[in-house]
Amino acid sequence: MTLPLAITAGEPAGIGPELLVKLAHRQLPRAVVAIGDRQLIQARAALIGLDIELVPPSPRQSVHQPGRLPVLDVPLVNRDCLGKPDAGNAGALLNMLNVAIDGCRDRQFAAMVTGPLQKSTILDGGFAFSGHTEYVAQRTDSPLPVMLLANESLRVALVTTHLPLRNVADAITSARVGAVLDVVWQDLHRLYNIQQPNIAVCGLNPHAGEGGHLGHEDAAEIQPAINAQRQLGRQVHGPYPADSIFAHQGRDADAIVAMYHDQGLPVIKDRGFGSIVNITLGLNIIRTSVDHGSALDIAGTGKADVSSLMQAVQLADRFAQHRPKSI
Amino acid sequence: MTLPLAITAGEPAGIGPELLVKLAHRQLPRAVVAIGDRQLIQARAALIGLDIELVPPSPRQSVHQPGRLPVLDVPLVNRDCLGKPDAGNAGALLNMLNVAIDGCRDRQFAAMVTGPLQKSTILDGGFAFSGHTEYVAQRTDSPLPVMLLANESLRVALVTTHLPLRNVADAITSARVGAVLDVVWQDLHRLYNIQQPNIAVCGLNPHAGEGGHLGHEDAAEIQPAINAQRQLGRQVHGPYPADSIFAHQGRDADAIVAMYHDQGLPVIKDRGFGSIVNITLGLNIIRTSVDHGSALDIAGTGKADVSSLMQAVQLADRFAQHRPKSI
Repeated sequence: MTLPLAITAGEPAGIGPELLVKLAHRQLPRAVVAIGDRQLIQARAALIGLDIELVPPSPRQSVHQPGRLPVLDVPLVNRDCLGKPDAGNAGALLNMLNVAIDGCRDRQFAAMVTGPLQKSTILDGGFAFSGHTEYVAQRTDSPLPVMLLANESLRVALVTTHLPLRNVADAITSARVGAVLDVVWQDLHRLYNIQQPNIAVCGLNPHAGEGGHLGHEDAAEIQPAINAQRQLGRQVHGPYPADSIFAHQGRDADAIVAMYHDQGLPVIKDRGFGSIVNITLGLNIIRTSVDHGSALDIAGTGKADVSSLMQAVQLADRFAQHRPKSI
Repeated sequence: MTLPLAITAGEPAGIGPELLVKLAHRQLPRAVVAIGDRQLIQARAALIGLDIELVPPSPRQSVHQPGRLPVLDVPLVNRDCLGKPDAGNAGALLNMLNVAIDGCRDRQFAAMVTGPLQKSTILDGGFAFSGHTEYVAQRTDSPLPVMLLANESLRVALVTTHLPLRNVADAITSARVGAVLDVVWQDLHRLYNIQQPNIAVCGLNPHAGEGGHLGHEDAAEIQPAINAQRQLGRQVHGPYPADSIFAHQGRDADAIVAMYHDQGLPVIKDRGFGSIVNITLGLNIIRTSVDHGSALDIAGTGKADVSSLMQAVQLADRFAQHRPKSI
C-alpha cells in the first residue's frame, strides 16, 4: 500500500497555508495529508481566490486528486493572525509537528514535509525550540541530524549549522566530522539509492589550511575523519579549499560536505534559490522541507511561489520509494 | 602620452612566462612591458611552439603590436627550473616586483599586472613574504590594501583574507570594517568611475546574527561601520546573511563586501573561475592580477589559459584611463 505524505501548514501568519492550497491543485506523485487548521486553510484559499475541497483523510486514498486536499485538523487558538504571528498558536504548531512525526513513526505516513515556521512564535509561546531539524531529531531519538540542501545541480551537507562564527573552529573535531560523513554516506545510499556515494569535503580554513600555514584543523581534525571513511572503501575525499570545491574538486561529487553555514550555502542559493529543498539526514523517518521562511509580508496575496514545496514533496516521495520498509 | 602596462612574469617554474608569450599574440588595449628573464621567456616560447619577437622597451611605444613583446630583462639565477621552483630565484622574483612597483610610482608605467607566484619559492629563499598584495602595499606605503575579486557578473571585496577561521571573529572590528568600506567606496569611484557606488555588506554570523541569537558582531561591529558610511550619504547597506546576499540583497550592488575568505569567494569562483581578476584596492598605484596559481603541473605544455591574464590587462587599462593623473 502506498502511504501518503504528511505536510505541515507551518506558521499561520505566513504563506504556509496558502502554499498548501496551491500545491493541492498540482499533479502530485502520491496522496498527501495536510496537517493544520482546517478553517484557516479554507479562509486562505478564499483570500487568494482558489477553490479547494477540504476532506478528511482517508486511509484508502493513495492517489492525489488535484483540487482536493485531505486535512488532518489541528485547531489554532487564534486564526486572526494574517501577517501577525500570535504566540498563542505556539502549542498548536508543535502539535502539527508531533502529529506528522508520530504518524511517520507509526507508518501512517510515508514521510513528512514541513512548511515554513516563524521560530519566534514558538519561543515567545514559552517553548524551547531551536528549529525543525532539532525538534524532529529529538522526538525520534536521532542522535545526529544533518542538514542537507539540494537542488538540481548540487547537494550540500553541513557539519555545523546555526553557530556564531567564533564557535565554529572548536566544533570541528574529527569525531564530529567523522560522524557527519557517516550519516551523509549512509543516507545518500539509503534515501537517494546511490550505491557508491562520492563525497567531497571542504577544509575549515582558507586554502584548506595551506599546509598548516593558515590553521591546523584541516590536517588535524578533518583529514583523519576522511581517512577513516576511505578505510571503509568509501569515496570520500578532501579536504579541499572551499572557494574552489564547488566549481572544481567537488563538481562530480554526489554531495559536498561544508564545515559551516556560510561556507556551504552561498553557492547553492546562488545557483537557484527557489527550488532548493532542505532535507534532514540521520533520522529514522523521512523529512524534507521548503527552504524559505514564512514571508509574512506577502502572506494572503497569493504571490508565494510553490516550487520549493513542490520539490520537497517530490523528493519525499522519491525517498519513500527507495527506503526499505524497516529501519 | 599613453603609458604602457608592466606585467611581471611570475614564478619561472610555472605558467607565467608562457602566458606572457600567449598574451603578446593578442590584440591589447595599449602597449605592455614584460618584466622577467628574457632568455627564459624566449625558451618557453620555443617550448610551446609560438614565435615571439622580444624587444627592449621603448618609451615611444604606446600601441601593442601582436607577436612582439617588449621585455625589461630581470635575469634569474637558475633558468633550468621548469616545474621545479628554485629558491635561488627568490631575489630575482622580488626584483621583478620592485621594478614594476617603482615604475608605476615614477609614472613609467600606467599600472602593473602580476603573473602568478609560488609563495614558497620566496619564503624558501629566506625572504619574509606574505603575498603580492601585502608586498605591493608595503613598498607603496599603503596602510590598508583590500582584495577585490571581479568577473563579468560580480565584484567581491574581503575584510579579512588569509586568516585561520578561528581568528576571523576577533578581526572584525567596526574600525576595520569601516576602513575597508571606505577603501572600497573610494576605489569603485576612482578606478571604476562609478559616481555613486552601491555596496552590499555581509554579516559575520549565520543569518547575519539573527537579531543577536547567533552572535553579536553583526550588530555591534558591522552595523555601526555601515551607519557611518550612510551618514556620508553613501549607498552602503547591510549586514545581510551571506547565503542570500549574492542572489538577493546584493544582486544589483556594484560590490559585495564579505567578512572573510570562504564567505566571499566560493560564489564568484563558482560563477566563472577562468576569467576572474584579482585587484588590490587602497593603493596609490594600480595593480591587477591573475586569479590562478603558477600551475607547475602544466608548465611548458602550452595548455595554460590566458583569459584571466587577458582580463587583468584589460581592467588595468580601463583603470588607467579613469584614474586622475595625480594622486
